Amino acid sequence: MKLAVVFLLNEYADWEGAYISSILNNNENWNVKTASTEKEVISIGGFKTKVDYLINDIPKNLDLFIMIGGNSWNKEYDYLAKLVKNYLDNNKNVAAICGACDFLAKNGLLSGYKHTGNSVDLWNNYTNYINKTDFLEEQAVIDKNLVTANGTAPIEFTKLILEKVNFKNSTWIKENMYLYKFGFYEFIKKYKNPF
Amino acid sequence: MKLAVVFLLNEYADWEGAYISSILNNNENWNVKTASTEKEVISIGGFKTKVDYLINDIPKNLDLFIMIGGNSWNKEYDYLAKLVKNYLDNNKNVAAICGACDFLAKNGLLSGYKHTGNSVDLWNNYTNYINKTDFLEEQAVIDKNLVTANGTAPIEFTKLILEKVNFKNSTWIKENMYLYKFGFYEFIKKYKNPF
Repeated sequence: MKLAVVFLLNEYADWEGAYISSILNNNENWNVKTASTEKEVISIGGFKTKVDYLINDIPKNLDLFIMIGGNSWNKEYDYLAKLVKNYLDNNKNVAAICGACDFLAKNGLLSGYKHTGNSVDLWNNYTNYINKTDFLEEQAVIDKNLVTANGTAPIEFTKLILEKVNFKNSTWIKENMYLYKFGFYEFIKKYKNPF
Repeated sequence: MKLAVVFLLNEYADWEGAYISSILNNNENWNVKTASTEKEVISIGGFKTKVDYLINDIPKNLDLFIMIGGNSWNKEYDYLAKLVKNYLDNNKNVAAICGACDFLAKNGLLSGYKHTGNSVDLWNNYTNYINKTDFLEEQAVIDKNLVTANGTAPIEFTKLILEKVNFKNSTWIKENMYLYKFGFYEFIKKYKNPF
């Protein structure tokens, strides 16, 4: 069984982890667990989420670490920065969206990776952010073991993660991402009705 | 302060309520609360959600009742059917997506309303579903005080609900729904960069 840990903070963005979490956890080969700095966090949408792991208990050995954006990424989380550096250095898959990309930039964790995020202009004062030329103006970017995305790209984020972890096959990923992005009626115009 | 109650069951679909909940709860005029048949439900994605109201404690007086789809709508929930009928008859706004539309069909709660859902063919054996000709093959449908949508239409569902509750203004709704649907880079091609 493969393990994905989804890291959330208070006021996390409900829509950003919804697609990747539900697709992975609905599959027999994957387990999705949540983690945070506290036992319970509340989403922007008001959903009270009881997490599975407190930050210090997150397994070092996992298959995917996903960091969800939201309104609490402007604080310091030193242990988290070390944990993510460890994952990246040990070739574990890491994915960050929206505010979580700001955190990676601030902590110098985007060095050596092509990446994206909400806006590179937000990071001008981050002295540890040294590779502005690696910022790509795309919805989501993958480079080696790191996927990054802006906060309006939950589906593109999901697509790149699924490809990276070799989920099912490329046809399944392409068709299902089209279905989620454009909806059922556009989907059956392009592909045959699967039902 | 206006109240929206989001009704969830075990194995609820993470992506279906994410947009509408976060937009409403992020606004100073709205409070979003969750409700279910039990104190804690787990989403398809593995998020453990501690709800605000048990089903019998859901306020009769609210501004919006949203029912989220998922894998548990094949059971009977008699009290819920009565509650929803009461909301509909008293001109309260009700919104249902995906499996929640199956529940409305099964309980005859779509009578008198144009509507949609995942597929009308799923409802052939529902004797209380008497208005098949009112099923529209659209992502989301509004008729009077009822919004319905299929499970691939969380954004279209959100748009119709926001319009119904007169959220902000039509330009805000149109632009923000385009941003969520097509992402930041398509958005700034169509509209000016807001940042």
